Amino acid sequence: MRKLSLKELNRLSPKDYEIREKHPIIIILDNIRSAHNVGSAFRTADAFALEKILLCGITAKPPHREILKTAIGASKTVGWQYFENVVDAVRQCKEQGYIILGAEQTDKSLFLQNYEIDGGKGKYAIVMGNEVKGISEEILPLLDHCLEIPQFGTKHSLNVSVATGIIVWDIFSKLKYKDV
Amino acid sequence: MRKLSLKELNRLSPKDYEIREKHPIIIILDNIRSAHNVGSAFRTADAFALEKILLCGITAKPPHREILKTAIGASKTVGWQYFENVVDAVRQCKEQGYIILGAEQTDKSLFLQNYEIDGGKGKYAIVMGNEVKGISEEILPLLDHCLEIPQFGTKHSLNVSVATGIIVWDIFSKLKYKDV
Repeated sequence: MRKLSLKELNRLSPKDYEIREKHPIIIILDNIRSAHNVGSAFRTADAFALEKILLCGITAKPPHREILKTAIGASKTVGWQYFENVVDAVRQCKEQGYIILGAEQTDKSLFLQNYEIDGGKGKYAIVMGNEVKGISEEILPLLDHCLEIPQFGTKHSLNVSVATGIIVWDIFSKLKYKDV
Repeated sequence: MRKLSLKELNRLSPKDYEIREKHPIIIILDNIRSAHNVGSAFRTADAFALEKILLCGITAKPPHREILKTAIGASKTVGWQYFENVVDAVRQCKEQGYIILGAEQTDKSLFLQNYEIDGGKGKYAIVMGNEVKGISEEILPLLDHCLEIPQFGTKHSLNVSVATGIIVWDIFSKLKYKDV
């Protein structure tokens, strides 16, 4: 077994990335406090060639030193839009036919492993909320589903970057690799 | 839809966590540079009640201010051991019957979505490598499998905390929720 060289990884140039088809998933960052978490979301969106990121409320936006550092450049390749109010971001996605998923522990949440998607057909917008408060109350009525990552420990909370990665991977892999 | 209160989350006390049965997954951190990534791994291990974390080489170990801050206390509940040499950590896991999985892009890697586990039966140790160099060359011959998260962008690299979360969730959910 040997590690692949950088060349063998077939990384796309920013130009080729710009024109390649994107996967129909949008990340909505709802009042994220830490620019580190924003940069990490850009890196995750680049890795899976997601449609774009919507940055809302107090969420930091590029150009920003901390985002640039954490995203290692992905904030220059991944498309983004800023919305002062997360409600407007969610409404735009709904109008464009996206299924709106919120990452939150609610009385109606589905566990992530049980959420079944319409193989290969749907478009998804995933709302990730503030590190302390979670997603904004005002958008709860606009969500199609709330998804919850099952938790077994003392904290019942994952780092937002990690939770974003887990939910994006789960939805992405069901969308791309699940038999239709 | 309404958010659950802290009480409704049924978080375990550190004492109850200590005695609960753990899921048979170990995270091996192989020369991780950033204490932030170490803290995040503790938080992920707590969330999924994993067996323990093995900290190897230059990887920071508790007590450590940055780990404590990022782990928000999980470094006090999750079991850990320190090994100067990652080879010794991997050998110990092998002797204890763990299947050793490395997160790395190699010529023999399996894509994460294609890796099938022996539903409900195996024990898994997942090696996460250095932020720049990846996993140590010396342990490549000791791995049972290398797993690769498929990448479609310009970077071909995810943040280590995020990659840890994605691989842990994927293996964990196959182990716990897949029909045997």
